[in-house]
Amino acid sequence: MNEQVFEALGIETLPARLGGNAALKERIGADSSRWRVREVGDGNLNLVFIVTGETGSAIVKQALPYVRLVGESWPLPLKRSFFEYHALKRQAERDPGMVPEILFFDEAQAIIVMEYLTPHVILRRALIEGRQLPKIGRDLGLFTARTLFRGSDLSMPTREKKADVALFADNVELCDITENLVFSDPYFEATLNRHTTPQLDGLVEELRRDRDLKVEAQRLKHLFSAKAETLCHGDLHTGSVMVTDEDTRVIDPEFAFYGPISFDVGMLLANFWMSYFSQEGHEAEAGGRDVMRAYLMETVETIWETFRAEFANLWRSERKGILYQASLFEDRGDPLGAEQALAIVLDDIRREMLGFAGVEMHRRILGLAHNADFETIADPDRRAVCESKALKLGRHLAVNRERISSLADIRATAERLYRETLS
Amino acid sequence: MNEQVFEALGIETLPARLGGNAALKERIGADSSRWRVREVGDGNLNLVFIVTGETGSAIVKQALPYVRLVGESWPLPLKRSFFEYHALKRQAERDPGMVPEILFFDEAQAIIVMEYLTPHVILRRALIEGRQLPKIGRDLGLFTARTLFRGSDLSMPTREKKADVALFADNVELCDITENLVFSDPYFEATLNRHTTPQLDGLVEELRRDRDLKVEAQRLKHLFSAKAETLCHGDLHTGSVMVTDEDTRVIDPEFAFYGPISFDVGMLLANFWMSYFSQEGHEAEAGGRDVMRAYLMETVETIWETFRAEFANLWRSERKGILYQASLFEDRGDPLGAEQALAIVLDDIRREMLGFAGVEMHRRILGLAHNADFETIADPDRRAVCESKALKLGRHLAVNRERISSLADIRATAERLYRETLS
Repeated sequence: MNEQVFEALGIETLPARLGGNAALKERIGADSSRWRVREVGDGNLNLVFIVTGETGSAIVKQALPYVRLVGESWPLPLKRSFFEYHALKRQAERDPGMVPEILFFDEAQAIIVMEYLTPHVILRRALIEGRQLPKIGRDLGLFTARTLFRGSDLSMPTREKKADVALFADNVELCDITENLVFSDPYFEATLNRHTTPQLDGLVEELRRDRDLKVEAQRLKHLFSAKAETLCHGDLHTGSVMVTDEDTRVIDPEFAFYGPISFDVGMLLANFWMSYFSQEGHEAEAGGRDVMRAYLMETVETIWETFRAEFANLWRSERKGILYQASLFEDRGDPLGAEQALAIVLDDIRREMLGFAGVEMHRRILGLAHNADFETIADPDRRAVCESKALKLGRHLAVNRERISSLADIRATAERLYRETLS
Repeated sequence: MNEQVFEALGIETLPARLGGNAALKERIGADSSRWRVREVGDGNLNLVFIVTGETGSAIVKQALPYVRLVGESWPLPLKRSFFEYHALKRQAERDPGMVPEILFFDEAQAIIVMEYLTPHVILRRALIEGRQLPKIGRDLGLFTARTLFRGSDLSMPTREKKADVALFADNVELCDITENLVFSDPYFEATLNRHTTPQLDGLVEELRRDRDLKVEAQRLKHLFSAKAETLCHGDLHTGSVMVTDEDTRVIDPEFAFYGPISFDVGMLLANFWMSYFSQEGHEAEAGGRDVMRAYLMETVETIWETFRAEFANLWRSERKGILYQASLFEDRGDPLGAEQALAIVLDDIRREMLGFAGVEMHRRILGLAHNADFETIADPDRRAVCESKALKLGRHLAVNRERISSLADIRATAERLYRETLS
């Protein structure tokens, strides 16, 4: 692997090109002539292969110099693979066991070889099928709290944090995607947008006229672009989580950037709320997914409460960074000062998180990158009913985020929206 | 000037070492044997020489590898000169004529050769003497609005802004000084602290027990460390401004970093409020500086109103960055949407700015780096009276910043504090 000129892997060429790789040979078997290769990339950006040899399997992920979903007309630099690799390394340190093990990284070829997760499935697919995963609420709450706390000035030596800010500041092109596709395009007639038409036309027009909503979406973009608080996963939706009943793994952090602690949490919860509204489009008979809907709402609350509890736990036990130093509080006999600051910080995170959740729900229905929860509802009338409820909750969250004090209130609002068109 | 090993300049060695420098020769005269050199550095960190030749003068500023105020026991990297140079270049583009012209920069020797400003004096000295400068309010309001707006994602191509964030993220050691000396040390018994003792002991102890104040100081540190919104000067006090009646220049941006728009504005206003309270220590008879006090309060209001007006002007005419895009507002016939966002952004800046002002007032009286406004009041009883009022206003601003809606209210509070011990 000393090629300096990038070359995309293929099913045929992979064994020859990676056959000399010690880490891969050790994991799956040294005889590369017996490797079987399948291409399984179903994402928007990259090549993903499962390579199986005599003693095991591994994932070979390779970035392409363009957006796979769109084609060579939308170039996208290979360096996103570098950021994904560095994010995976940091996440593995900050919450061990929650990301795939990395076996090998080749920066010039933009190749990451990693653990093959089996029998894991993509969480989004499981939720569409109506499957309840018992551990995800707790696992994802802990993952967000640990990675986001430990990547911030609450925990890291600030010299390292600043160097990391500089490193990830170069992930410009992937930030640009989020900046446009999440915060701006959904709110005007951008070229790449699409939505279920004509069913949603009226509501879409209403949202694009909604001054308060547009202002909030841009305030959130302002936070996204300016608040370099911690290393975010950057794309933490249910398609970036692989699960079994016993195991939860977070994958694909190529959008990693220094941003607000609230960002990953908001993106993640938005995808559960969308799953909630999409269930209606997947149930065989009315009410057939009632138990699943209750499970999704409980999972949202579990993620948020676990996040809060673990963040508070780390605040009290690992607050070694430059912020809210113990020398001002605990060391002066004022632990309540630290508790007061924690309450304010968590309050700020909640208010921002709800805003990010709101715009994520919009962009998945109005923008370029839709999600399978809704897309797999074949009947457009039925799909539009689900999508319109998600759009309305998104608007409610984005505009009223400063005034919503509890997740229980959101559950009540969502349940009311769900019942809107029933009977 | 091809030396790669750093060597401090001296009065004797400067002509020989810089005698071959074309830019300097052109400015002050080619015959370096006739150059006269004076060392005038009165700051805390660097060597500053005035070099005069047959046709003119220039300033030669050289960083030292340690803090001049403290000595070699506190090393400080030479690269601060690199950041000062880059900040000066950007400020010169963003508000032409407001910073000294740069003639030459030598990164390895940490030398910046620049325009000699004459007959300018340091603004802080002029204010201590009771001198009113007619133009500073407007000039500094414009300078802050222009440099801070134009260095942000409101204006810059975000690729350039992100590259600049990465560049300045390496100014770790100077950020570290601010992080400790401004936001933390004043609020506990840090080694380097000093204050007028015993006169202020009671108030100092009260402030260090003040939970709300300490929490706010740390929230402001959180903003300082995480909100990479624009390129800040980083040390914009009245000692970093040189003035005549007709001209205002801003110098010494070696603390430059990507931070909140509000930071420079808050630091600057704090120094005027401190000047206000210090006048009492400089007046020959009670009330002798009444006119000066009124001038200072009017200057604060002029800076702030000019900042707001110019920021709004730029918002309406130069908002070409990724934030609050016209495509969502003006281009859709919704200019009021952009106005709504502007009101919110300015409101956020005001609330942050008041907080930064509050802690700046504290650190100049409780921390390591005091300012001459108070230090030149020889009588400690008299000085302590002035300082205690400034400390109280600082606490009021830092803790109540979210609730204070106008600068006029602050003027009333300050005037009330000023009269507290009179009669």
